[in-house]
Amino acid sequence: MNPSYAASDLLIFAAALLVQTGLDADKSRVVAEILLEGDLLGHDTHGLHLLPLYLDELAHDRMAKTGDPKVLADFPAAVTWDGRRLPGPWLTVRALALAAERAKTIGTCSVAIQRSHHIACLAAYLREIAEQGMLVLLASSDPRMGAVAPHGGRSGVYTPNPIAAAWPAADGPVIVDTSMSIASYGVARRHFDEGRKLPGAWLLDAEGNPTDDPAVLFANPPGAALPIGGLDHGHKGFALGLLVEALTGGLAGWGRADPAEGWSNDVFLQVMDPARFGGAEAFQRQTTWLARACRSTPPRPGVDRVRLPGERGLLLRARQLKKGVVLHASIMPELTPWAQRMGVPLPVPI
Amino acid sequence: MNPSYAASDLLIFAAALLVQTGLDADKSRVVAEILLEGDLLGHDTHGLHLLPLYLDELAHDRMAKTGDPKVLADFPAAVTWDGRRLPGPWLTVRALALAAERAKTIGTCSVAIQRSHHIACLAAYLREIAEQGMLVLLASSDPRMGAVAPHGGRSGVYTPNPIAAAWPAADGPVIVDTSMSIASYGVARRHFDEGRKLPGAWLLDAEGNPTDDPAVLFANPPGAALPIGGLDHGHKGFALGLLVEALTGGLAGWGRADPAEGWSNDVFLQVMDPARFGGAEAFQRQTTWLARACRSTPPRPGVDRVRLPGERGLLLRARQLKKGVVLHASIMPELTPWAQRMGVPLPVPI
Repeated sequence: MNPSYAASDLLIFAAALLVQTGLDADKSRVVAEILLEGDLLGHDTHGLHLLPLYLDELAHDRMAKTGDPKVLADFPAAVTWDGRRLPGPWLTVRALALAAERAKTIGTCSVAIQRSHHIACLAAYLREIAEQGMLVLLASSDPRMGAVAPHGGRSGVYTPNPIAAAWPAADGPVIVDTSMSIASYGVARRHFDEGRKLPGAWLLDAEGNPTDDPAVLFANPPGAALPIGGLDHGHKGFALGLLVEALTGGLAGWGRADPAEGWSNDVFLQVMDPARFGGAEAFQRQTTWLARACRSTPPRPGVDRVRLPGERGLLLRARQLKKGVVLHASIMPELTPWAQRMGVPLPVPI
Repeated sequence: MNPSYAASDLLIFAAALLVQTGLDADKSRVVAEILLEGDLLGHDTHGLHLLPLYLDELAHDRMAKTGDPKVLADFPAAVTWDGRRLPGPWLTVRALALAAERAKTIGTCSVAIQRSHHIACLAAYLREIAEQGMLVLLASSDPRMGAVAPHGGRSGVYTPNPIAAAWPAADGPVIVDTSMSIASYGVARRHFDEGRKLPGAWLLDAEGNPTDDPAVLFANPPGAALPIGGLDHGHKGFALGLLVEALTGGLAGWGRADPAEGWSNDVFLQVMDPARFGGAEAFQRQTTWLARACRSTPPRPGVDRVRLPGERGLLLRARQLKKGVVLHASIMPELTPWAQRMGVPLPVPI
């Protein structure tokens, strides 16, 4: 069994590594919090697994270490920033705070960010805003990569393009975080690294034949990931993937049409305050009714019960905060050389 | 071959039937335009096919014939209306005009509408707003019905919950309109009426086994529709379907938790002006690059070429405006008794 760690020890450890690489202290803390939150929720391809990659970006000055985003537009329900390659978690947390503050007065506020660095696990940002009674949307794309094939095509053009969202309900928030391709890049990469096949034929090889072998994504010529719906109804996932592109690269005004700048994200987020629509209580009356109706739906053969999006993650989070965070086996060995180089003591397993 | 009609003749015919049933003249014209636009774009389960059903609703006073929506909230980026069971197309066109006007100054504006009557084909509303350079989102749910099963469940709880969107690109707008279930209710119903199977196992029977037989939806006990992704990855379609519920019934503050009122929709729409984000030109630079990259992607075996969402519909629309609208064979026979009763002359095929 993998070792487990106190969440607070992991937070201090991750923040210390980031500070030692030269990132501002406040930014280091927020990046560490968001990465840890990914692991707490069980998104272990998008949590501290990313930290060695971020440290490498910082060490090579491909992630900015200090300063603020540049405000490109402010109208006031629509705000656009140039993220100047600052850490994605820090930019996103700031943008969400701005959007939430404005949503409380004008009903909704959107922020588009161009030239953010990677924003990690989208679900990690959402719980607190839902717990404040608001509905939040978050989406991202990576203009450097083209791993997902348009429906009917056989080579990759755009990215998995996750849509995340959260909103309140009486029994706890619903938290959605799902890529518009069947397999996210992180999941495909993890299976490839471990020599495993995917659970379904979620990819295409370079000739356009469906396959469950993640090696096709890393072959030359490469294969591609299929949009949600796959060969059967992938026009739906394709349409939604393009919508994310329009919201992120389109509204942010920077992306695939521009020269590549390395690992980066276009980000779109929006906060909506139900109290400024049909009412906070009326909102939760509907979302609570629906959550309960879904949970009490009789299950299909072989399924124990229906779970809501985010339900497993929130339970896992509560358990790991209490009993310790179990990291994926690959994470601590990858961080150990960084810790040694930086003189940061390794966290002690509990 | 089915007869074809001049679009202008169909518009006059449909509007006359609506006026004769007592609907205000301006509302009749807008409803007729939106239904016809559905057929022009090839969505023939959501065009004039709906007109006899709407006439029946009007004749029985289940669709309101006159008056305005009631403004429940206005903040100003978030507006909420009680639609008072007025015709959905008329409410939606008015709400989109309001949202578009405000988006031009504050960047984005959302409207949530509770107690709208049915809004027909979502794609029918979007082209003009995209041609003005803006990005538009439109989603709806029907709180009266529960046809779609939560992922893992075997009975229907919510509706297919379409998400539609459109945005500009240099070679023409991209127009998305896709339900968050694999099969929309209209498509399943059409296959059932014609005694045909669906193209895939897109439904569950009452025991929770996958099937391509649309009869299960109309059996007792009924089966259910599967979310996008089906048994393989239906947690994604389920999450997105719940998001549409939160945006529509949640923000509008009325829906499944309330006593049923008959055929109705909760509607959510939003217009975003790229000129108030990263810039109109920067937006189209990205969307045009991506549209061209997708169109020029080498196709999979057996596919002639990649098509963008809405591409077939816009081509069909142009052809039908020029050469006549081919209606589905069921439509004119269903309208003929209404025309005779109302004394409205039938359109003459060309």
